[in-house]
Amino acid sequence: MEILILNGPNLNLLGTREKSVYGSRSFEDYYKELEEDFPDLKLSYFQSNTEGALIDKLHEVGFSFKGIVFNAGAYTHTSVALSDAIKAIDTPVIEVHISNVYAREAFRHKSMIAPYCTGSISGFGLESYRLALQFLERQKPKQVGFRV
Amino acid sequence: MEILILNGPNLNLLGTREKSVYGSRSFEDYYKELEEDFPDLKLSYFQSNTEGALIDKLHEVGFSFKGIVFNAGAYTHTSVALSDAIKAIDTPVIEVHISNVYAREAFRHKSMIAPYCTGSISGFGLESYRLALQFLERQKPKQVGFRV
Amino acid sequence: MEILILNGPNLNLLGTREKSVYGSRSFEDYYKELEEDFPDLKLSYFQSNTEGALIDKLHEVGFSFKGIVFNAGAYTHTSVALSDAIKAIDTPVIEVHISNVYAREAFRHKSMIAPYCTGSISGFGLESYRLALQFLERQKPKQVGFRV
Amino acid sequence: MEILILNGPNLNLLGTREKSVYGSRSFEDYYKELEEDFPDLKLSYFQSNTEGALIDKLHEVGFSFKGIVFNAGAYTHTSVALSDAIKAIDTPVIEVHISNVYAREAFRHKSMIAPYCTGSISGFGLESYRLALQFLERQKPKQVGFRV
Amino acid sequence: MEILILNGPNLNLLGTREKSVYGSRSFEDYYKELEEDFPDLKLSYFQSNTEGALIDKLHEVGFSFKGIVFNAGAYTHTSVALSDAIKAIDTPVIEVHISNVYAREAFRHKSMIAPYCTGSISGFGLESYRLALQFLERQKPKQVGFRV
Amino acid sequence: MEILILNGPNLNLLGTREKSVYGSRSFEDYYKELEEDFPDLKLSYFQSNTEGALIDKLHEVGFSFKGIVFNAGAYTHTSVALSDAIKAIDTPVIEVHISNVYAREAFRHKSMIAPYCTGSISGFGLESYRLALQFLERQKPKQVGFRV
Amino acid sequence: MEILILNGPNLNLLGTREKSVYGSRSFEDYYKELEEDFPDLKLSYFQSNTEGALIDKLHEVGFSFKGIVFNAGAYTHTSVALSDAIKAIDTPVIEVHISNVYAREAFRHKSMIAPYCTGSISGFGLESYRLALQFLERQKPKQVGFRV
Amino acid sequence: MEILILNGPNLNLLGTREKSVYGSRSFEDYYKELEEDFPDLKLSYFQSNTEGALIDKLHEVGFSFKGIVFNAGAYTHTSVALSDAIKAIDTPVIEVHISNVYAREAFRHKSMIAPYCTGSISGFGLESYRLALQFLERQKPKQVGFRV
Amino acid sequence: MEILILNGPNLNLLGTREKSVYGSRSFEDYYKELEEDFPDLKLSYFQSNTEGALIDKLHEVGFSFKGIVFNAGAYTHTSVALSDAIKAIDTPVIEVHISNVYAREAFRHKSMIAPYCTGSISGFGLESYRLALQFLERQKPKQVGFRV
Amino acid sequence: MEILILNGPNLNLLGTREKSVYGSRSFEDYYKELEEDFPDLKLSYFQSNTEGALIDKLHEVGFSFKGIVFNAGAYTHTSVALSDAIKAIDTPVIEVHISNVYAREAFRHKSMIAPYCTGSISGFGLESYRLALQFLERQKPKQVGFRV
Amino acid sequence: MEILILNGPNLNLLGTREKSVYGSRSFEDYYKELEEDFPDLKLSYFQSNTEGALIDKLHEVGFSFKGIVFNAGAYTHTSVALSDAIKAIDTPVIEVHISNVYAREAFRHKSMIAPYCTGSISGFGLESYRLALQFLERQKPKQVGFRV
Amino acid sequence: MEILILNGPNLNLLGTREKSVYGSRSFEDYYKELEEDFPDLKLSYFQSNTEGALIDKLHEVGFSFKGIVFNAGAYTHTSVALSDAIKAIDTPVIEVHISNVYAREAFRHKSMIAPYCTGSISGFGLESYRLALQFLERQKPKQVGFRV
Repeated sequence: MEILILNGPNLNLLGTREKSVYGSRSFEDYYKELEEDFPDLKLSYFQSNTEGALIDKLHEVGFSFKGIVFNAGAYTHTSVALSDAIKAIDTPVIEVHISNVYAREAFRHKSMIAPYCTGSISGFGLESYRLALQFLERQKPKQVGFRV
Repeated sequence: MEILILNGPNLNLLGTREKSVYGSRSFEDYYKELEEDFPDLKLSYFQSNTEGALIDKLHEVGFSFKGIVFNAGAYTHTSVALSDAIKAIDTPVIEVHISNVYAREAFRHKSMIAPYCTGSISGFGLESYRLALQFLERQKPKQVGFRV
Repeated sequence: MEILILNGPNLNLLGTREKSVYGSRSFEDYYKELEEDFPDLKLSYFQSNTEGALIDKLHEVGFSFKGIVFNAGAYTHTSVALSDAIKAIDTPVIEVHISNVYAREAFRHKSMIAPYCTGSISGFGLESYRLALQFLERQKPKQVGFRV
Repeated sequence: MEILILNGPNLNLLGTREKSVYGSRSFEDYYKELEEDFPDLKLSYFQSNTEGALIDKLHEVGFSFKGIVFNAGAYTHTSVALSDAIKAIDTPVIEVHISNVYAREAFRHKSMIAPYCTGSISGFGLESYRLALQFLERQKPKQVGFRV
Repeated sequence: MEILILNGPNLNLLGTREKSVYGSRSFEDYYKELEEDFPDLKLSYFQSNTEGALIDKLHEVGFSFKGIVFNAGAYTHTSVALSDAIKAIDTPVIEVHISNVYAREAFRHKSMIAPYCTGSISGFGLESYRLALQFLERQKPKQVGFRV
Repeated sequence: MEILILNGPNLNLLGTREKSVYGSRSFEDYYKELEEDFPDLKLSYFQSNTEGALIDKLHEVGFSFKGIVFNAGAYTHTSVALSDAIKAIDTPVIEVHISNVYAREAFRHKSMIAPYCTGSISGFGLESYRLALQFLERQKPKQVGFRV
Repeated sequence: MEILILNGPNLNLLGTREKSVYGSRSFEDYYKELEEDFPDLKLSYFQSNTEGALIDKLHEVGFSFKGIVFNAGAYTHTSVALSDAIKAIDTPVIEVHISNVYAREAFRHKSMIAPYCTGSISGFGLESYRLALQFLERQKPKQVGFRV
Repeated sequence: MEILILNGPNLNLLGTREKSVYGSRSFEDYYKELEEDFPDLKLSYFQSNTEGALIDKLHEVGFSFKGIVFNAGAYTHTSVALSDAIKAIDTPVIEVHISNVYAREAFRHKSMIAPYCTGSISGFGLESYRLALQFLERQKPKQVGFRV
Repeated sequence: MEILILNGPNLNLLGTREKSVYGSRSFEDYYKELEEDFPDLKLSYFQSNTEGALIDKLHEVGFSFKGIVFNAGAYTHTSVALSDAIKAIDTPVIEVHISNVYAREAFRHKSMIAPYCTGSISGFGLESYRLALQFLERQKPKQVGFRV
Repeated sequence: MEILILNGPNLNLLGTREKSVYGSRSFEDYYKELEEDFPDLKLSYFQSNTEGALIDKLHEVGFSFKGIVFNAGAYTHTSVALSDAIKAIDTPVIEVHISNVYAREAFRHKSMIAPYCTGSISGFGLESYRLALQFLERQKPKQVGFRV
Repeated sequence: MEILILNGPNLNLLGTREKSVYGSRSFEDYYKELEEDFPDLKLSYFQSNTEGALIDKLHEVGFSFKGIVFNAGAYTHTSVALSDAIKAIDTPVIEVHISNVYAREAFRHKSMIAPYCTGSISGFGLESYRLALQFLERQKPKQVGFRV
Repeated sequence: MEILILNGPNLNLLGTREKSVYGSRSFEDYYKELEEDFPDLKLSYFQSNTEGALIDKLHEVGFSFKGIVFNAGAYTHTSVALSDAIKAIDTPVIEVHISNVYAREAFRHKSMIAPYCTGSISGFGLESYRLALQFLERQKPKQVGFRV
């Protein structure tokens, strides 16, 4: 059961950037913990600051993987192209955010991608990723086309 | 570790109402499953169609319980009073929705309560409640005031 | 053929409140006239100022009655929860208003419940209720699920 | 007691056009039924696709007829000129719509003419016209200037 | 020096309609007074309730007459087509209104045609037409293409 | 001279909730001070978190009491039904707020009830209630229908 | 294969009006060229400045012709009635514009009729009509109901 | 019959400033012409760039003069205080503009003062002032309180 | 304890202007009454129609006086400069209005200065000033920096 | 005569993605057909999901090619940068869309690039590209700078 | 080479007012430093809290000075009259702000005067003035009419 | 003291593109001049049309360089991702624009990045870059974290 964790712009700075909002742990460090905690899921990870590279990745895995956990960062709020990409592929996508986007600036309350995702999880810090994986793990024995 | 599951208007019809959106299982049935799956959490459950009754309940448990999993239903999108109640109490509140509210009417994209909740989970069907409990369970050994 | 006439907030003051807009006759008095004029319809009547109580009533009769004539008063313009309740039940609902809401303040031009009602009647004074009952009476010999 | 039934643009296609929305019965056929059912009302009928022709007709009968039942079709939502014409004449006008306009596109929720009509009836299929006539028939013994 | 006075929808009811706003004098009566007071101007007059007929008239005289005094009535606020017609012709057009449109409903504050007219005069009762003619009369000895 | 002090949602938490905004004194404690300071006014007090219960109370005293001092809390900004209730009753209502609502979130700048109140007082802490009573006390010798 | 070319308001002035925007060739002249270049299509042509006359024409040919090439001029941006007419008929309609409407005033960017047309072509001068006919000609051997 | 011509900000630069919009004649020069052409009117003139000075002047003459011809310049579009001043005084005010404000930037289409003026005249160059005086002169034999 | 009462534009006309809204008593007359009723407060009074003069006055007393009671009139709704001045000075400012601004035009519902005032009082006629002084008098024994 | 066909984000999935909207034919397959049908045009083709790569390509060919047929996909609705690139180059650009963008979500009705393109063609399926080439082919004998 | 430094409302309080935003240095002190550092520029300085006085000053120097460095303070965001004054004069104006206006309230993001200024500089503290002078000094040998 | 000059989309065409707006000098040519004029600053230069590449560059230098002069071109108005990147790094960023963006289309008046920049400079042609460097040079002896 292959799962992609996909991170968008500026998330490579995690642990460095705005620690009061995002915490001081790097994603790479946290990713190792997830790999250990979900041995049944075959995780892979990709990050890019370029919208087109994220679309390319969605296309690449979006017809074979079993799930994508996607933190689109700032592109969440502006990218019709990413929204179209998610709609175009077969693999279900779960939207995650580290911070509670609804407690921040108004423009962060709007998600272009949410309507085409299976579901959304925001505000639980890095644990948001874990909750998404917990959902996917539990769906395992069920059919792939699990869009709720 | 006392946890309240709080459901707002029309959720008493779950399993009866608009099955294509909400599924055909009653919440009472699902609640039993949750009680079994989370034996370490002391769950309780309350549902009301009246905004004021939901506020009363938040006040009642909001200074002693360890967490509240709240599906405010339609009041999510209109109630400043519920928003104020969540801000006023000490207990962390997790917002959950059964359906993907972002894939529905535009007025459902706005949440009055999200800014004052710890986090939000929507679109995973009844599993949205389970994810909230999984998060709370994992916080157990940590300090109570865990607002991320 | 059971029919509920359901009145929302402040309609208990009919005959007392703003007589230039709503007239000087109490609804109780008018209701007796309707019972006499529609002997074939089994009418019942409920009024509340509480949104939740109106939702409870819609749930109570909404799977067995043959029609509901609903003047939601001020909640017409603000209540997503009542709108959801009407969508959730089986019984057709007819929206009525005593005054011509389109000749009043702009916020009264918007009805949250109209999209899920069979039809809307406004501006005919208390006769708006009679027109709704005339429609329901004529549907009698037809099938119950008469949503036009 | 002379009554005009006035139909606006595209209503000549009734029974032909979008049957799922408007039904399959022509208005001419239905009009005969109304003439039979309301023998005490002296009905006449006019339809035009031209805004100016509808205004001309309102002017022509608007100082002598006892009532006008007006389905302004698409001009309902855009015509200040029709709105002004209704305000300018003496005869009361009742707005009717076959479909539930509030369950359709947002631009159909706004009526330019409603503020100057006696009342509005929408969503009851062709029965919307009958309800308007029932109201007018009942006003007969009362004074002409019956604007509620 | 040929001048057209062009009146739009509902202005044929002048003297009959809403006397508190528009006064009780018919335009025909006033027009005779204008013909007497401006013997040097060769006046003609046209009124229609149909947008297309007004456009036809603008096309007809718009390449030969010396000026058009236009009260577009309700079409003032909605008609792009009339606006395009005024832009397309050579004859200068002066916009007039009997009432002070800025003291009425907000939708009457917007004029679609004003940007392509020489100037606008509103609020002086029927005298608005006289002011327009006084301006045109004074331009007489100057060049025709007098757009200010 | 009977006066009702009416408090809306979450004001029962006063002294407990968000002390930096609302202060640390309970309303019950302050109410006793007011009773002592205004011996000529026959004060009574009611609080509810339920919109309908507040409407019921307004109806109950609104045709016999001499004044109502109303802090509608969050319902201030959303409730058409409370606004209608105030318009429907005879007793003058004075709107009060503890905090300066204009220095807080934009949605708190709009008051649905202000247009139908005698006046509004906000930002003086609990002293806002005292100012309202001082106004009412001074009106005593004048006529009851003192709406300014 | 009968095709109607339908032109709306002010297009009769083509070649006369605003030459910098629309060019200096009359449509009649261009229409002859089209008749010669598309001998297999049975073309006919109609122009009117009256919205209602355009609707009448759409009704007249809309159940028998094979295609309509429609330049609705200014009515493009305002007419719900034309939009309803296109939706009501069977014949596919192609929207054309001579100028690039997106390079002009903002109100010209919105098309009321586009959603119900097969496709839209704008900005190619009179060649916009030719492109529409080229599309229709190529569809010939296919089925009539070719809405893409 | 005393009449004040009142000019607002930047109009002292007339003849100097933006000649393509406002022409090259100074207002002082034109004012002399007006004094000669209207010997029966006792004209006076005041200009200021300060909003408060214009209000002071309106107060000073607004209870004794017979008319005010007011070009409020840029304050037309922003000043509630001038609007209040015009509403507060007895003397009728006529709004004039040299340029056609509707052919310029959108913010110039809104007039704060128009609703409280007798009428508005814009776009006739300096002749706008003359038209206002012609209207006032003709009212002479009538009653002073001539607000149309 | 020095207190300034500061009045903005058009308030010099009090007692003359729009008596149905503002009453028929001049402010000077009322001010004498206040001086007598608050002998412990050292009152002074200033009025100007010029925004800049009001700012100058705020600067002049705003670092030494103990309180300012400010009715900014029309500048309330438009002046960022006055808002900045209030924010810049040390003396607390109380906003007062004679009429209930929320019962008037929509543009009067917005106050630019309210967010930086201690509190707001509107709708009590001239008594609004008295309530502000009563609040200030009661603060006397407390610390100066009493911003609630 | 060199022509570039330029495709934006997600169009590489054509034939795979959302077949009900976009059809089941890959663009590569269709491109071969175009090369055969337009032997006189020297076609080339480029697709990228990255906004910057599309800009680079426009710069590369935009001073030497004779035309660009551009389907900007989702970037159509959001990209100021692509709009600036089209404005900056010399080669005329024709905007094409496979689906009728006006029959889809509202945000797809706005095109950032249309104002700087020669013209727009949408809704004809893959035939939209052919129509653009037919236009370009016909311009061949004319001058290059053919912007209509 | 005469240069005016012009400061708008509240800037006379610099060094006193909101030191965290504006710093603690008075402008007079800083102005002396500028005079020393730019010996080749003939500087003069004017400050006023009155919009009209600023307009008067712009008129006074705007046809003879070589440049104006203008911090319009709060009038930046509201004054059409100042905007018109800048457009009307010949001398180029450079807009400066001490604070980064884009990092403050939304209403400070809009500048009414920027479109008619040569350029804008904001956010560099008092150094914003220096940068403007550095630009002007470098233009010296060039032609006066240097609007970029 | 390392300084990066960073240019966004289409700025590689400088000297080629829209010369009336941007001038005819290439940036490379101007950059050489800057290197000579600021020998104390260690300048480097990067340009890209890809949003992600600009983010990568900001990350690369944003924790070691002393300043960044950033002309984000069209991304200024749309990119939340660039805004987040600037907020995330330590190096101060100065926003520059060649043209006066406030004198151009409305969408160019909004800057997504300005709130997180030290300051903004626009409208001085290529000299805007020089002013930014002059500011940075003067800060040299001061502390690095000089955010004003």
